[in-house]
Order: sequence, then C-alpha cells, then structure tokens
Amino acid sequence: MTEPDLSVIDQHPYRWGNPNPPPGLPEAIRAALGHLGVRPGARGPAVDLSTVQLPAAVLPEAARSALAAAVGAEHVSTAAEDRLAHTRGWSTPDLLRLRRGDVADAPDAVVFPGTHDEVVDVLAVCARHRVAVVPFSGGTSVVGGLTPARAGFSGVVALDVRRLCRLVALDEVSRTATLQAGLRGPVAERLLNERGFTLGHFPQSFQGASIGGFAAARSAGQASAGYGRFDEMVVGLELATPRGTLALGHAPKSAAGPDLRHLVLGSEGALGVITSVRVRVRPVPASRVYEGWRFPSFAAGTTALRALAQDGPLPTVLRLSDELETAVTLAGGPGGCLVVTGYEGGAAEVAARRAAASAVLAELGGTPLGPEPGEAWRSGRYQAPYLRDALLDAGALAETLETAAFWSELPALRAAVTDALTTALAEAGTPAVVLCHISHVYETGASLYFTVVCAQADDPLAQWAAAKQAATAAILRRGAAVTHHHGVGTDHRAAHAEQVGPLGTDLLRAVKRALDPAGVLNPGVLI
Amino acid sequence: MTEPDLSVIDQHPYRWGNPNPPPGLPEAIRAALGHLGVRPGARGPAVDLSTVQLPAAVLPEAARSALAAAVGAEHVSTAAEDRLAHTRGWSTPDLLRLRRGDVADAPDAVVFPGTHDEVVDVLAVCARHRVAVVPFSGGTSVVGGLTPARAGFSGVVALDVRRLCRLVALDEVSRTATLQAGLRGPVAERLLNERGFTLGHFPQSFQGASIGGFAAARSAGQASAGYGRFDEMVVGLELATPRGTLALGHAPKSAAGPDLRHLVLGSEGALGVITSVRVRVRPVPASRVYEGWRFPSFAAGTTALRALAQDGPLPTVLRLSDELETAVTLAGGPGGCLVVTGYEGGAAEVAARRAAASAVLAELGGTPLGPEPGEAWRSGRYQAPYLRDALLDAGALAETLETAAFWSELPALRAAVTDALTTALAEAGTPAVVLCHISHVYETGASLYFTVVCAQADDPLAQWAAAKQAATAAILRRGAAVTHHHGVGTDHRAAHAEQVGPLGTDLLRAVKRALDPAGVLNPGVLI
Repeated sequence: MTEPDLSVIDQHPYRWGNPNPPPGLPEAIRAALGHLGVRPGARGPAVDLSTVQLPAAVLPEAARSALAAAVGAEHVSTAAEDRLAHTRGWSTPDLLRLRRGDVADAPDAVVFPGTHDEVVDVLAVCARHRVAVVPFSGGTSVVGGLTPARAGFSGVVALDVRRLCRLVALDEVSRTATLQAGLRGPVAERLLNERGFTLGHFPQSFQGASIGGFAAARSAGQASAGYGRFDEMVVGLELATPRGTLALGHAPKSAAGPDLRHLVLGSEGALGVITSVRVRVRPVPASRVYEGWRFPSFAAGTTALRALAQDGPLPTVLRLSDELETAVTLAGGPGGCLVVTGYEGGAAEVAARRAAASAVLAELGGTPLGPEPGEAWRSGRYQAPYLRDALLDAGALAETLETAAFWSELPALRAAVTDALTTALAEAGTPAVVLCHISHVYETGASLYFTVVCAQADDPLAQWAAAKQAATAAILRRGAAVTHHHGVGTDHRAAHAEQVGPLGTDLLRAVKRALDPAGVLNPGVLI
Repeated sequence: MTEPDLSVIDQHPYRWGNPNPPPGLPEAIRAALGHLGVRPGARGPAVDLSTVQLPAAVLPEAARSALAAAVGAEHVSTAAEDRLAHTRGWSTPDLLRLRRGDVADAPDAVVFPGTHDEVVDVLAVCARHRVAVVPFSGGTSVVGGLTPARAGFSGVVALDVRRLCRLVALDEVSRTATLQAGLRGPVAERLLNERGFTLGHFPQSFQGASIGGFAAARSAGQASAGYGRFDEMVVGLELATPRGTLALGHAPKSAAGPDLRHLVLGSEGALGVITSVRVRVRPVPASRVYEGWRFPSFAAGTTALRALAQDGPLPTVLRLSDELETAVTLAGGPGGCLVVTGYEGGAAEVAARRAAASAVLAELGGTPLGPEPGEAWRSGRYQAPYLRDALLDAGALAETLETAAFWSELPALRAAVTDALTTALAEAGTPAVVLCHISHVYETGASLYFTVVCAQADDPLAQWAAAKQAATAAILRRGAAVTHHHGVGTDHRAAHAEQVGPLGTDLLRAVKRALDPAGVLNPGVLI
C-alpha cells in the first residue's frame, strides 16, 4: 500500500482522512451481493451535498462575539462547508443521513482554539451562554459521538482541536511523548518516526482519527497485543473543562487514590476536552514480519489465540477471522479460518518470538500460509470503511459492531449476537451475512467484531436500528461489554446505562456535574 | 523460610498476620544503631495494652440494635479486645501511639457482616444513624487509612469483612477467580494453589493484608514485574455503598465510557466497601529461580533495570538496592548495589527468559552473585516490618516511604528525598541513615522506596512527622507521585489534594457525595 500524502490528508480530513477512496466494488463482492438480493440502483444516488440547505444558524450574537474574543474572529467559522464538515461522524447511519440530505445536526459554528487556555476560555464562554459544545478532532465516531442533543441550548458549536497539533515533548529516557489532541494518527506517527520512535497505535480509523479522540474514546489499535490499547499508553493528560484544568499523571503508576486518568479516558467529550496526552512510545521496530495461518474452525483458532494470550509469547498483531470472513478475505483460498500474526521489534527478538508463537500455533492445529495473507492484511488494513459508500451506492447495507467478554463466554456470545442479527434482518425481509473476527486478545478474554451486509430495505436507518437493537439486547443478556472499542456515543447510551445500573449512571452524572455544571459538553453523548 | 501456619494466622490477624515475630534484633543491626546514637532502654518499654482503659463507647443504642438486626447480635462486638484490635493500622506512628497507650481512635464497636447484602444493610444503618464506618480487612494500612475523623458523627464502627472469605468462583478457561474481600493473602493463595492457580500478588504485607485491602489501596506486590499490580489483575468487582451496589466488569477491557473499576480501586473505603473482586489468575509456576547481581553503582543498576523494563525480557521480580541497603542486606558482601532477579513460569520459558535477561544485565555491567542473595531475599521478604517493635524497644525509629516517577526524573528525585530526610532528622539532632531501593519498574518509570533509621527523639511522633513532611514537600516539588503503593489514607491527604488540584479534589468529593451522601464512609481518609 502506498502511504497517503499527509499534506492532502490535512486538507481533506472528513473522509477517514483518505482523499482517494476506492472507485467501486471488487467484482467478487458485487457478485456476492446479488445472492443477498442486493439490486444496484434500487436505492438511488446520494444527494449532492453542495445543493443542500443547512438549517439557519441560531448562535446568539453575544456568544459568537465572546467566542471570537477568546480565539480570534478568524478562528470562528459559520461557513456552510465548515458546518457541514462537522456534522455527525462516520457510522453507516451517519452516512445514510447525509446521503439523503439530512443535515439537521449541523453545528451553528465551528471554533478552532489554538492553545489549551483558549479551549478553557471557549468552554467558559459556552457555559455562560448555554451553548452546547461538541469536541471534535478526527470526526470518525461510529457511535453517534458527535451528535448532540440541541434541546435547551442557545446553540451548538463544534470545538475542533486541529490547531493543537504539536509534538510538545519527547523524553527519550522515559520513552514518553507529549502529543497535542489535534494530531491525526499519521502525523503523530510521522513526527515520532522522525525522532526514532513509534506510538504503535493503528486502529482502522488511523488515517482520519486523532490523538484526542484516541484518548476520549478509549481506542484500541490493531496492534494492541503488542503495543497495548491507547488507555494503556497514556501516562498523563490535560483536560480543559468549563471549570478550569485538570492535569493528571505524576508517575507511570501510583496508589494515590483512584486513578483519575481513567475517568478522563473514555469520557467522550462529555466531561471536558483533552488537549494533550503524555504517552508511552517505543523505538521504531527494526524488524516486521506478518504472516497467515489456517485453522480448521473458529473454535480451534480461538483456542490458539487464547493459548498465546495466556501463556505467550504474544505476537504484536493477532487476529482470527471466521469461515465467512476468511472466504471473503482469501477468495479461492484454503477455507477454514484465517489467523493473522504480526511481529514487530528487534530482529533477534522478533525471530525468537515468532518461532515460539509459531510452535504454539502449529501444535494447536494451525497450518502456516506464509507471509502473503499477513502482508495483504497489513496493506489493506485501513481500507474497509472506504468501501461503504460504494456498497451503499450498490444498494447494500454494511455496518459493524463489536463487543468483548471473558474467554469462557465467547462462543455463546458469538452465537447469540450472530443469531440476533441474522434473525432481525431476515424478519425484515433482507437476509444478511454476518462475519466475525477476534482482533484484540487479553489474558482473560477477547473482543468479537461483527460485520453485517445485506440489501437495503426501504428505510435502511430503521432496518439497521432494529438489527442493532437486537444485537445489543443479546450482548446485554450475555453480560458482555456493550462496546469494545467503538465507544458509547449516543448509540450505546441506553445500553451502557442499563449495564452500569442506576448507581453507576448517577455516579457518571455526578462526575459530569462537578466538571461541567452547565451541562454544555457533548449533551446526550455518553451520559 | 517455613511458611506460617495459616490456621494460626486466622486467629492472630493483628500483627501483619505473623504470630511469631522475631524475638530481637540481629547483632549487626544492634551494633550499627550505636553509631546513630541509639541507646537501648533510653525510651522505656511499651505500655501493656491489657492495662489500658478504652474510651467509653458512644454508639447510640438505636444504631447498635439496628446493626444487630442487620448482621445478627453475635456479629456486633463492643468487647475491648475487638475494639483494640481495630484501632488504627501498622505504620510506625501507629505503633508509637499504641506503645504509649494512646487508644483514642478505638471504634465504638466492630461489625462482622457475613454477606454482601449485609454490608449494604450495615452501611444504610450507619448512614441513617450518622455513624462513621471504617472498612477493615487486614488492618495493615501504614498511612492512617484506618483512623477516621470522629467529629460530627454519633459514633464509629469498624466494618470487618473477615467473614467474607470464600473463593466464590474459578473460571479455568478465562483464568479468573472471584475472591471475597476478607480473604487474607496466604489463605487466598492457598485456595487458588489447591486448584492449580496463583494470584502472584506478594506485597510485604502479604501475611496480614487481604483481598479487599489490596483492591481498595491499589496494592503493588513484590512480583509486580511479572504478575502486574493488583489494579491490573482486577477485571471485575462488587462495591457496597450506602446507596446500594455497584457491580462492574463485563469484559477484560472495553470502551464503554470511563473505566469505573479504576474509580473503586484506590478508593480506600471512602466510597464504599469492596466485597469481592474477580481477578486474573495464572497457573502455579512449575519453575522458580531467584538470584543476585552486583552493580557498581545505583545509576548503573538503574540503567540495567530500565533496559529490562523497556526492551525486555522482564524477570518476575526485579529489584535494585542502593549501596547502604546492599551493605545491610549482604553484610560483609561484595559492596556495590544488589539487584535481585526472580523468574517464575514454565521451565523452558523461565530458562529462556533468564538467559536473555542475564545477558542484558551482564552487558550493562552486572556481576552475577548466584542464587544465594536471591533466595535469601525471597525467604526473608515479609520479615522487615516485624523488626520494628524490636527497633522501637531498642530506642531506634524506623519507618519507610515510597514514591514513583518517570525514569528521567528518578536520580534527582532520589537525591531530593534523601536530602530532605537526612537534613530534617539531622536538624532534629538525630542523624539518620536513609536506604533506597527500586522494587517496581514500568516502561516509563519506576518506584523509589526509602527506609529511614535514626535514634528516637523525645517526641518520636513529632520527629517523624517533620521528616515525613520534608520528604513529601520534596516529592511535590519534583512533581512525583505522593505514594507508589502505600496509599493516601490520612497521612497523604493534604499532599494528594495539592497534587490533583482544587478541581480534582472537587471531583473526588462529588464522587463521594454520589455514593455516600451522608459522608459516613471512612471520614477523613483520602478525601
């Protein structure tokens, strides 16, 4: 894969950062869609957004001028293109709404503060004028994390942190970097690479998402087995709130009361705006090996992943696709279930780790497929989301969801969610294929990631809402995590509240009141 | 070392769990104390506690009978021996107060609930009657975590969770165990060992401390390099609060909002009573190797520890003593700084890891000392606290404190804290020796642990308070952690508040109000 031109990304930040989405669907996928009853052209083309009229901006003039005073008039925009570019995130329902010209959630203005203190000032202005604030960095939320409840506010602004885009400090002895929130994944990585370091955080949204979003949504990258989750990388952070600044992180770990860093991580813009994080970094790996393995079944593959997660050694990347996803990935391939393993590090260390892990995989029934499936996964790992517009154009509906559980619960959980999705969509008259993979492993459990494809019904938003609701209900019944790495947003808010219970919900509300008494931060998201 | 008889420990839980403290001081230590001006007998013997009159119990009768109704009259004790046994923790100041007969902090009663629901009921009763509650498990706090502020309450009860002492569930596939809070370290370990598993959590307080305390105080065991800190082991927990139950942990990790488990871990009984935790466990290791290395200086040893923490492989136990601590540990030994390495796991894995780590240690200037110093450390690792009574009897003052910081900050931090302690105590006319070690390493930093020994002044409590205050001020000035694994308690409350700032303190207060509106839980501790 050619790495994208970063200067272009900076200018086109609203399509996962990729200015060149694939032009259409591979023929194999097009043929497969036919079997699902997908009929090209049946749903009509997307509305041309340049012709859509945005709702009138209602931001009071006093608020607008106070914001201009805080950040400079040139950094407060009410231009239609800016408002449009900050309308919702990039879930399939978000795409569907935009495609039919629904821009009702557009903010009234977009504010671009340039410093932490300006962010604090903007929040104070918004609290004073009862303006809802949507913290915005990459804009890649797939759970409605950028769709505020407007009711009761005098207006809505998006607070875009893109001007906070510096590598503030690099401590080569402690191996930490202080990164500002607005740094996109590829830019942060480039700045670190230039100094010999890497963050190692590569979620599928990498090209468009940013450091602030990684922290606020507790992101987990595809190399989490080796580099850890983003919440494990963060050793310090700075949060701007309407009541001032919370600066946390005096040591890697301590026993100084509850670790408040974990109250900010995952707070999704509802408690404040993360303006910078101090993260653990690692040297750029000298050696990288990616390869594939075939397992006869998902169960056998799961056992192998569990063995590596519990007894080691852990590859840097470790994934298992079910039979259907394997068939889509390795068209005409060997069948069974594909395991991708990746190793990054020093040459000798990678060789030793790979040999030991390979012995475990072979012992547990794996057949080596060589580097090709691994390299193919690596080079295509950011591409899938870009296919969605082409799928929607073709009349298909495609969306993903994820959960996590303890190892002993995984088989029943996978069956329950798959059954919920297939049943709900079959009942809607649009039989679906449901693919599943494991992409994040822990000693005590793992994630499950589902991809759903079917024909679009007349009302695809209602169609997906029903399927999603059935899946979420199954997850709640099984006591599994409402989300593994997509976050809560508005889509999972009710399920999350049910899972943490009335007391947990009260607790979150109390925390929000303490930091955001006026309740202006991302209203309706998370809490 | 002979493992202690656990049945005896269960009956004698108030002296770190060890019914047989060492009878006196080793001759070498006795001689060394002479050089510090310590004069045996100068301070007089400890008061015989059986002759001490406890303050009159003030618990209102209505509260007492409601507590009896909640847990059964036989599980509410106002006996002097129970009240005395729940008076404060085991810091040296706590010992000093008891030795001079100060039992002013004795609770009015001790309540022993037998189930989670009974704990909830007890808390509701206490909230209704404005009775302060001190959650009590092992009673090993060394930071005043069991010393409540009595003012404004109708009485004080200790809530002892010792009857919650079951291994509730073991999930061998997920490798998790659900342990109740009252299980002492050795008992929990024995129950797991019988099933082939280990927790791997061995803090110095292991023999007396309990599961609930490990969680509530964010304990870090001596094998944290290999097994992780206790807060990293916990995947789920149940918290009883005056407002009901908070049950958390649906998966090893998720992105479902802030990880509220981390708000409970470290909450030190101020937010609720942790009644059980679900923790990650591991198979009992087949192989254990402990050994010693000599480094020419603390700086060289620190560099070696950092190399292992950052580039691996990590031993299971990894410690570095400074020159003075090494001299005390290896009397007549080779000088320099002792590094102890321990490896636990499968035989082949241990052999490979030991070989690779040894190569790093040798490369960075270490000289192997063979197994003896490692095994000596392992067999004596729980003994040091038991020496304190003998030291106090001999007229010496001995206490410890700890902090943590990023690697680049460690040398200056060590110098600043050492200087603060030695200056303060020299100015008091009692020159001190200050020993230092690193016992917990992370990729980005490490802990520093200080042991201070000097002659007792006329008022040893004031003497230590001044030294401790100087050390804490130095830690705050360097921006390091107020505590690495001892916790906040009452001793670090002011420093912790200064470090998290007014907004962080407000946040903690808001959290407390949400769970404990009457403020009866461990008043004055943490918040």
